[in-house]
Amino acid sequence: MEALKKRILTDGSIEEGNVIKVDNFLNHQIDIDLLNDIGREFKERFASEKIDKILTIEASGIAIAVIAAQYFNVPVVFAKKTESKNLDAETYESNVYSYTRDKTYTIRVSKKYLRENENILVIDDFLANGKAVEGLIDIIGKASCNLVGIGIVIEKGFQKGGDSIREKGIKLESLAIVERIEKNKLVFR
Amino acid sequence: MEALKKRILTDGSIEEGNVIKVDNFLNHQIDIDLLNDIGREFKERFASEKIDKILTIEASGIAIAVIAAQYFNVPVVFAKKTESKNLDAETYESNVYSYTRDKTYTIRVSKKYLRENENILVIDDFLANGKAVEGLIDIIGKASCNLVGIGIVIEKGFQKGGDSIREKGIKLESLAIVERIEKNKLVFR
Repeated sequence: MEALKKRILTDGSIEEGNVIKVDNFLNHQIDIDLLNDIGREFKERFASEKIDKILTIEASGIAIAVIAAQYFNVPVVFAKKTESKNLDAETYESNVYSYTRDKTYTIRVSKKYLRENENILVIDDFLANGKAVEGLIDIIGKASCNLVGIGIVIEKGFQKGGDSIREKGIKLESLAIVERIEKNKLVFR
Repeated sequence: MEALKKRILTDGSIEEGNVIKVDNFLNHQIDIDLLNDIGREFKERFASEKIDKILTIEASGIAIAVIAAQYFNVPVVFAKKTESKNLDAETYESNVYSYTRDKTYTIRVSKKYLRENENILVIDDFLANGKAVEGLIDIIGKASCNLVGIGIVIEKGFQKGGDSIREKGIKLESLAIVERIEKNKLVFR
């Protein structure tokens, strides 16, 4: 998606540890017009699929998922990272290791909101090592839902998450894939 | 907002400790059509105000804020509850006490995304004791921005957050105000 790549080059930055910082328009301050372009692009890329629900994970996935959901006419469910009084006792859970924070956390989705045989599209902002997405796939399996595919805004192609998902035969659509970071510049695949 | 109140009565539930549970359509599974109705309603109620930016707080505020932002044609900024490598070192901070979790946490907004004299509309899902909103107001003050008003989906009118904000002369628009909970039934103001 050219407009997105251009925006990443213009407004993104590279921080220590190959962190790609896009908090100017994607995950702290949010450009709603760009999000709508992203939502339309996901709809095009999954146009031939039957999708009943979009699944994402708090926090930054939520903005992207709800705007995209308008083009699919489906509800969104977001996995929670923290326990909450507002969450049902009956949940599907998965443990996710975060490289960024160097700790394992549990993600949870209420059993009520993933029903058997529902067709699920996963949407998230970033894909690097793929641990968060693996957790969502695990939950989709536990709920006996069908994983239709995965839509990612920015994939770090030099980390192993994307390839590992593709090897499993899962349809993965990443709107911008960073192939490598060369002398503090991003090179897209 | 009648459609919202009806939906709360139909799909919401009351849990121990006067928790109003609306995870069926608002803060776990999300009904995008209802969110669009909510966004349009906020736009109507703040139609006469000049708004440059919507400020909310992760996680459940994000979905509401980004859908509403489409009617205001402004970007969204969400305050973060956790420290992150993706967050600038230079932030406005405020400490927020959570009654639900019985602990104090720090919310942060990068100084880059709140500029002096910007006109800010605060949007969130719930208002009870008002601590989260007070934290956002504190940050808006520290950033020398103008607080235009506060838009809340569900206010617990029997807790003191709403009245305390109104007493300060701040424009507060709550789309559904629960006056009291009587024999396990919600009574709206």
